Amino acid sequence: MNYSLDSITENIVKTYKEKGVLNHLRGPNLPSRKSIRHIIRNIESIIFPGFESEEVLDKEFISYTIGTKVQQLTKDLTIEIRKSLEFACRMKKHSGACNLCAESAEGITFKLLNKIPELRELILFDVEAALQGDPAAKSSEEVILSYPGLEAIAIHRFAHELYKKQVPLIPRMMNEYIHRQTGIDIHPGASIGERFFMDHGTGIVIGETTVIGDNVRIYQGVTIGALKVIKEEAEVKRHPTIEDNVTIYSGATILGGNTIIGKNSIIGGNVWITESQSEGSRIYVKPVEYIIKNGK
Amino acid sequence: MNYSLDSITENIVKTYKEKGVLNHLRGPNLPSRKSIRHIIRNIESIIFPGFESEEVLDKEFISYTIGTKVQQLTKDLTIEIRKSLEFACRMKKHSGACNLCAESAEGITFKLLNKIPELRELILFDVEAALQGDPAAKSSEEVILSYPGLEAIAIHRFAHELYKKQVPLIPRMMNEYIHRQTGIDIHPGASIGERFFMDHGTGIVIGETTVIGDNVRIYQGVTIGALKVIKEEAEVKRHPTIEDNVTIYSGATILGGNTIIGKNSIIGGNVWITESQSEGSRIYVKPVEYIIKNGK
Amino acid sequence: MNYSLDSITENIVKTYKEKGVLNHLRGPNLPSRKSIRHIIRNIESIIFPGFESEEVLDKEFISYTIGTKVQQLTKDLTIEIRKSLEFACRMKKHSGACNLCAESAEGITFKLLNKIPELRELILFDVEAALQGDPAAKSSEEVILSYPGLEAIAIHRFAHELYKKQVPLIPRMMNEYIHRQTGIDIHPGASIGERFFMDHGTGIVIGETTVIGDNVRIYQGVTIGALKVIKEEAEVKRHPTIEDNVTIYSGATILGGNTIIGKNSIIGGNVWITESQSEGSRIYVKPVEYIIKNGK
Repeated sequence: MNYSLDSITENIVKTYKEKGVLNHLRGPNLPSRKSIRHIIRNIESIIFPGFESEEVLDKEFISYTIGTKVQQLTKDLTIEIRKSLEFACRMKKHSGACNLCAESAEGITFKLLNKIPELRELILFDVEAALQGDPAAKSSEEVILSYPGLEAIAIHRFAHELYKKQVPLIPRMMNEYIHRQTGIDIHPGASIGERFFMDHGTGIVIGETTVIGDNVRIYQGVTIGALKVIKEEAEVKRHPTIEDNVTIYSGATILGGNTIIGKNSIIGGNVWITESQSEGSRIYVKPVEYIIKNGK
Repeated sequence: MNYSLDSITENIVKTYKEKGVLNHLRGPNLPSRKSIRHIIRNIESIIFPGFESEEVLDKEFISYTIGTKVQQLTKDLTIEIRKSLEFACRMKKHSGACNLCAESAEGITFKLLNKIPELRELILFDVEAALQGDPAAKSSEEVILSYPGLEAIAIHRFAHELYKKQVPLIPRMMNEYIHRQTGIDIHPGASIGERFFMDHGTGIVIGETTVIGDNVRIYQGVTIGALKVIKEEAEVKRHPTIEDNVTIYSGATILGGNTIIGKNSIIGGNVWITESQSEGSRIYVKPVEYIIKNGK
Repeated sequence: MNYSLDSITENIVKTYKEKGVLNHLRGPNLPSRKSIRHIIRNIESIIFPGFESEEVLDKEFISYTIGTKVQQLTKDLTIEIRKSLEFACRMKKHSGACNLCAESAEGITFKLLNKIPELRELILFDVEAALQGDPAAKSSEEVILSYPGLEAIAIHRFAHELYKKQVPLIPRMMNEYIHRQTGIDIHPGASIGERFFMDHGTGIVIGETTVIGDNVRIYQGVTIGALKVIKEEAEVKRHPTIEDNVTIYSGATILGGNTIIGKNSIIGGNVWITESQSEGSRIYVKPVEYIIKNGK
């Protein structure tokens, strides 16, 4: 056995040379997970000031406090978006320094910054939807402080903006960070309407080409996914459409790009659906036969 | 597009003024998620000294070490409970400074501190239950170091005490922090007996008005929930009662405030129950018909 | 009520004396969760340099950078493995200082270090499997930066090596840390072949004596578990065998130590299997009858 740390290190470094897959080596590199976490925390503290940690927010100085955060967010987003665009550029075999990437990064960053007031308003509608949807919820503040589904939809709304601008890597990293926090896995490509409420949330999976209307409610363990998984079909709509005012109870699975759940429908717990359902449908699993041996 | 950070900031601050939802602005404010995390870590290090991080614990000085932690916990709890009580006070439109809240906060804090030895004993019973319940568990130490279900029930026992004292926000924030860590979502209102064991845990949801007896075992993905979700019924018992010595296997769903699972029952995996079951019941899903195409 | 912090502290310390369960008190102690987290982060930054945080990695100095990490890992692993071995020694009632444990700890550490290049290669195959298995995956880099299943299998491969060397506590702590991050609960005892891909991942449970072949794909919410949970049977094979090229869709449950899923099989979503299936099987849940009330 090899007991020399130098030689062990050399064997490891050799695999870098032979197999590649490194980040931040020399010039061009990728966003790190850490930098994406910073961006998310900054966004959250702009949307819900003072909920995560105990900042002193003073009415007279709040513009200054928020301004400092906005400035940091601008800087971080520009840098990380630029890295991501340059990465996509290299993938397409463009060569040379990419001035376009730097310029686009700045443009995309400012577009997102300008959208913050609108996004904050959307997210406050999501807070309301949670408050109305859960009998256990006692106040908006409780929802913001302790509902994982709210954090998931809030960050999804930002990630989805970057996804629409075709920023690679970052949107997916943002949603995966939230997936780790909450157990809710929403692909940043999913298009989600107003007043969206996920209760409990753990195990929810929502695929890339899903389209969800307004006032939709989803419970834990729901999958909105693809019917079959074929790499070649990455470009087509693989995931369902859920129209307005639909409720989907825990453990239900809805699959397929042509599947449309008509508005005002209720999908019961554990239901497995691969075909469209008309408006106002109520679908429940027929009481299954059980093997019951009652005691005594 | 607006490229001025000052003006972007002003647009954001405007939404604060128009839409509200801020924390820590001026005087009255709420507990932050960060302060609740500190409280939880402190509780855990008092219950299981030295398991999270490598403290030097010396037999002769242990009273001093633990005393310091208890002092910090007292201070943090008093402050955060006071904030929460004052929040509830404001919701009820009481005006003026609330001296009652400060006094109650101190009282509730000391009641909880006095309960620590009793709660620690209860939690050690939960450790034993895990050790006996899982063939893969090799020692109490392994359970404490690596069983998510143990951390979930330990913190639940503290959160439930605060819930019973009608402290708003904090109990829910404590359990949601643990939900993020473990994927186990227990509402602090749930009443849970001795020697409770959850294996794997991810996806377990236990509702606010659930009552669980002694020696109950629950596996991953189990929901103990409400039959229908109606905001108006927040005050009634919406979740089931599980009597002593019941085992509920993975993916089972038990719903409804009138549903009682009689003692010594076994509920099989994926079973969906909305009605009471007598003592000693054994309920399994009848082997479903599959579409099987065997190769070769 | 007792308002004296001193006396409250004494009551808590009394439970330590009466009920035990402490760590790091006096001489012999156990690994802490914090030290295991450090080891995992170090391993990850050796396997995928620069992906987690923004290190400056320079081609000329990379041996130095990685060498420093390897040195730290050697030190940490030796210390924590020694603690774990000594713990097992004490459990078996050996007395006195254990020189064998110190020696074994060093041996096991160096065996693992020497395996890093091989393990890195295996993990890069897992990256490829994810890239080929998910239509939404756009690059290896995206997989490394944002696929929870990849992190889970990468750390499992290290933990499984330590498990095979019969190191107590640490392998389970490593996998439980990853369980918390990803919702994927793989027991370190599970033997898993090449090119393993878990998509979404939340709720996956893989038991201790599971054997999985090459090119296997598993989706969210899949349980590969024991048929019944009996403490006495801890030593026998309690969990299934999954042969090469099997795909298991979301929510499926496969149970029992004698259950073998033959190669090239596809197990559909929500299928519940407790018996062996021959090569090339296709098993789907028969479309269940629903209670459907279509609107309009």
